Amino acid sequence: MFILDKKLQQDSFFIGDLELSKVLLMNDANYPWLILVPRQNNLKDIVDLSFDNQIILLKEINFVAEILKKEFECDKLNIANLGNVVSQLHIHVIARRKNDATFPKPVWGNAPAVEYCGNNLTKILEKIQKYFKNVDRKSD
Amino acid sequence: MFILDKKLQQDSFFIGDLELSKVLLMNDANYPWLILVPRQNNLKDIVDLSFDNQIILLKEINFVAEILKKEFECDKLNIANLGNVVSQLHIHVIARRKNDATFPKPVWGNAPAVEYCGNNLTKILEKIQKYFKNVDRKSD
Repeated sequence: MFILDKKLQQDSFFIGDLELSKVLLMNDANYPWLILVPRQNNLKDIVDLSFDNQIILLKEINFVAEILKKEFECDKLNIANLGNVVSQLHIHVIARRKNDATFPKPVWGNAPAVEYCGNNLTKILEKIQKYFKNVDRKSD
Repeated sequence: MFILDKKLQQDSFFIGDLELSKVLLMNDANYPWLILVPRQNNLKDIVDLSFDNQIILLKEINFVAEILKKEFECDKLNIANLGNVVSQLHIHVIARRKNDATFPKPVWGNAPAVEYCGNNLTKILEKIQKYFKNVDRKSD
């Protein structure tokens, strides 16, 4: 059974499951910020996935990147696997705007997170989750 | 004709050309740090590449990641497309060590770059470029 890292769970909201990855919304209203977590235990780096699964992950990165581009004004996508603090393999897909809290700096460590509250959270979850209704998720 | 961004050129050394990407060594001896630049003009985000080219890029990321893992002791790979400062599409592939200059922070903006000099540069170029001798590079 796949076990999501505790810190990832604490810092995010669940959006949905794709074929390979769990999709999370980072609890930081500074940026539309999604995280993909392939549902396999003991992965650290992208190259730890089989190449076939890397291709599925790439498709899923495209899927969530297109959602961010459609639903949010954005000047640049930031797509990254760092994992220096939380070692469980996870990929950040973040919509950056030139007037956001830290642009052009990276999002990590440059501004305190702004937690979503009430209506703001409901709105952004609705915006993103509508794309997950018809997703054909294969079994784990 | 593909034109490499001036800042990328200034901050790096040329390693070799793969089928899709130019490979550069970042001029920062703090980390073994490679950069892939797909040789197509006017690309900003990974999703601007055709999916076929994204798969080639993924293969090339695996290729350079394996070089870093073989040649350098490393605890974690950092693989990222940010591009907030230099907009030309480029992907960082960085070997991180728990005792490097900034771990677990990201490499960007957290420590001044340490330029390679003389023998150090020759050594690292040799270590990496030997993998590029038999690369079957298709024409642009």
